[in-house]
Amino acid sequence: MSRTNKPILVFQTDFTYAEGAVSSMYGVVKSVDRELEIFDGTHYIPRFDVWSASYRLYQSLPFWPEGTIYVSVVDPGVGTPRRACVAKTADGHYVVTPDNGALTHLARYVGITEVREIDEAINRNPNTRGTSVFHGRDLFGYCAARFASGIITWEEIGPTYPVDEIVLLPMAEPVVNEGLVTGIVDIIDPNFGNAWTNIPLSVFEEAGISYGDRLHLLVRHGDALVLETDLPLCRTFGEVGKGELLAYTNELMNISFTMNQVSIVEQYGIGFGSDWFVSFKKLKNV
Amino acid sequence: MSRTNKPILVFQTDFTYAEGAVSSMYGVVKSVDRELEIFDGTHYIPRFDVWSASYRLYQSLPFWPEGTIYVSVVDPGVGTPRRACVAKTADGHYVVTPDNGALTHLARYVGITEVREIDEAINRNPNTRGTSVFHGRDLFGYCAARFASGIITWEEIGPTYPVDEIVLLPMAEPVVNEGLVTGIVDIIDPNFGNAWTNIPLSVFEEAGISYGDRLHLLVRHGDALVLETDLPLCRTFGEVGKGELLAYTNELMNISFTMNQVSIVEQYGIGFGSDWFVSFKKLKNV
Amino acid sequence: MSRTNKPILVFQTDFTYAEGAVSSMYGVVKSVDRELEIFDGTHYIPRFDVWSASYRLYQSLPFWPEGTIYVSVVDPGVGTPRRACVAKTADGHYVVTPDNGALTHLARYVGITEVREIDEAINRNPNTRGTSVFHGRDLFGYCAARFASGIITWEEIGPTYPVDEIVLLPMAEPVVNEGLVTGIVDIIDPNFGNAWTNIPLSVFEEAGISYGDRLHLLVRHGDALVLETDLPLCRTFGEVGKGELLAYTNELMNISFTMNQVSIVEQYGIGFGSDWFVSFKKLKNV
Repeated sequence: MSRTNKPILVFQTDFTYAEGAVSSMYGVVKSVDRELEIFDGTHYIPRFDVWSASYRLYQSLPFWPEGTIYVSVVDPGVGTPRRACVAKTADGHYVVTPDNGALTHLARYVGITEVREIDEAINRNPNTRGTSVFHGRDLFGYCAARFASGIITWEEIGPTYPVDEIVLLPMAEPVVNEGLVTGIVDIIDPNFGNAWTNIPLSVFEEAGISYGDRLHLLVRHGDALVLETDLPLCRTFGEVGKGELLAYTNELMNISFTMNQVSIVEQYGIGFGSDWFVSFKKLKNV
Repeated sequence: MSRTNKPILVFQTDFTYAEGAVSSMYGVVKSVDRELEIFDGTHYIPRFDVWSASYRLYQSLPFWPEGTIYVSVVDPGVGTPRRACVAKTADGHYVVTPDNGALTHLARYVGITEVREIDEAINRNPNTRGTSVFHGRDLFGYCAARFASGIITWEEIGPTYPVDEIVLLPMAEPVVNEGLVTGIVDIIDPNFGNAWTNIPLSVFEEAGISYGDRLHLLVRHGDALVLETDLPLCRTFGEVGKGELLAYTNELMNISFTMNQVSIVEQYGIGFGSDWFVSFKKLKNV
Repeated sequence: MSRTNKPILVFQTDFTYAEGAVSSMYGVVKSVDRELEIFDGTHYIPRFDVWSASYRLYQSLPFWPEGTIYVSVVDPGVGTPRRACVAKTADGHYVVTPDNGALTHLARYVGITEVREIDEAINRNPNTRGTSVFHGRDLFGYCAARFASGIITWEEIGPTYPVDEIVLLPMAEPVVNEGLVTGIVDIIDPNFGNAWTNIPLSVFEEAGISYGDRLHLLVRHGDALVLETDLPLCRTFGEVGKGELLAYTNELMNISFTMNQVSIVEQYGIGFGSDWFVSFKKLKNV
């Protein structure tokens, strides 16, 4: 089999690149099969943040070739009885991850068609018995490498279990009610400081909101009002002046809001998750 | 065609690795052609800092094999009418970038022989119509992958335009005047905290300055004096004690100044760009 | 020779990815031989921290395939007379590094069987004469690429010198004395904030300490007491509540201590190195 017929492995973790963990994990992969191709997804998921792990899978995995194996290791429960699994998505990718909520966004937006619990008796690195704290290297990376290499088949990963047993984090649906569109801040971009909602452009269209409209935006964290403002819905940042507020459609075609070249996240302390509520309402043309 | 005959793709952006953008961009490249080889140039260009993008191209691109395609996405004007282009350098590399000043240093120090405006009708990912905010994934990365793969020819990137229409940032030449050498702080090294000027060693030689000489250094930001000191011109850091000031020749054979194992950037708040003026004068031997 | 028969190159440095140095270094490698495969070990070794460089080699290198060449560039003495070397380990890997202490942990825990001083007359990039400050690009990376490529043989790297001339940093052995186990904090994990000692689990077993035992821990920096506490020896973090102290066996089977999902490093200001002393004593069962 030629090098390029084996699936690509992409890794995302909360390890950072500050120490030697990523390197030893990748070394194990290349020791299983020298031909395997490895990419960094990101190693800067915030520590223990399963929600972000879930979002980054949804944001990135669909753009990789069919068959790509994404290994996601954000694992606050390492060594406890949570399942280690490999999931197959409806668009033909694989995710190797602790089953701790990291599949939430993919299950909802892409679909999981099958899931298997990793059989540690077969798929744990036999050279690393004794330690229980680095499943990225000893279990997830090792198992993913053997699967990518063809050493084990899909069935040999371990037994299937019902897809509806996959752990899902609670997540509210976007709702339109008399022109008021509500949803959550699903994630922030920690670098540019943009806030991304879970409201697709199609829901705005349903609510009769178009590019060029002015909107009234409320952001609440639980019961606390964090931001109340008016802003335009733009196609691009450059339609407003530097530092001015705007709503726009992000790279996943979801409604987002920010300030042109300024971090709204830092400016207003915007967070993300199931208790960060947003609502948009179209202002009457004046 | 064998894998290794296709040009390498190197990416530099201001995205950081904190979220999923780099991964989805690389996924698109590998979806265009599984054989393509991708490297991180850096994803830590300061946000929106086109000057730094320009400098990093000049610092790194010449060391890559002929034919290498460097994709540079620092794009504060994404979605506005600035040109998206592919430039060919005099030393046989390609740069895919918004034409917003990122080609300034290469144009000056290496030379641009031809430039083409990317034809979005052909070279934009057809699966990503609708969003206008992620040209790294949808336009620059996608177009670069198709060019590297041989799917499109150099001509099929889009129409040429005159090289002298390339957007250049203003940049002062180093000058020698009666032994006084003036220039700018062209960039800083944000990690070690060294300050790199645009004055080549050859200009020092012209001014009669040699290793071992003591120099008088002035650093001004606009009209404000930031640093005035005497320091030796050394071959290596170890010629002075830890924490002591020195001038030296950096990896591009340009005059630089710092403190041995201490960041002069943090110590004195040194910045960089066209309004950060430096002057050096040789002190009389005493 | 097929692509995959040439050794992998892994790089670790204190350069960070904030500027163009890593890219130009890798460009040189690919210019020597397009077929070479390059991985980031880490570029986030703390500046000038040779001890950390040494630890990360020990943590990561053994997991890579036999023949892998690890290039380690943490080089506060660049341009001074310290040796540039290539060492061969007892488990069949190579390390290209300044001989400044970076081989300390490998020499002790894995073994160095042979070491050669790099002959700069042959193995320095001829295009970069003149500059003396970037041996990562001009000497270590270039020489490693030529060796990996087969352009030079092991002998052509340069002359051997006695293994016992390798520069070693002082490091205390773990000691058991009447049930008291003493050692050092060998390294910290800067992300999760765990503290890793140089005491192997086997020394605990020798001292009659088992999982489930409660221990008395003292941490001293030189003469200063930094932390005194009781804590359990666990197999995994999840055996204690979030924020509670525990000792555990880390990924290298050495005793470590931390707080579950909280950084003990930040909480108590724990550092590492030869003057960070730890002692553990088993508490009587009550």
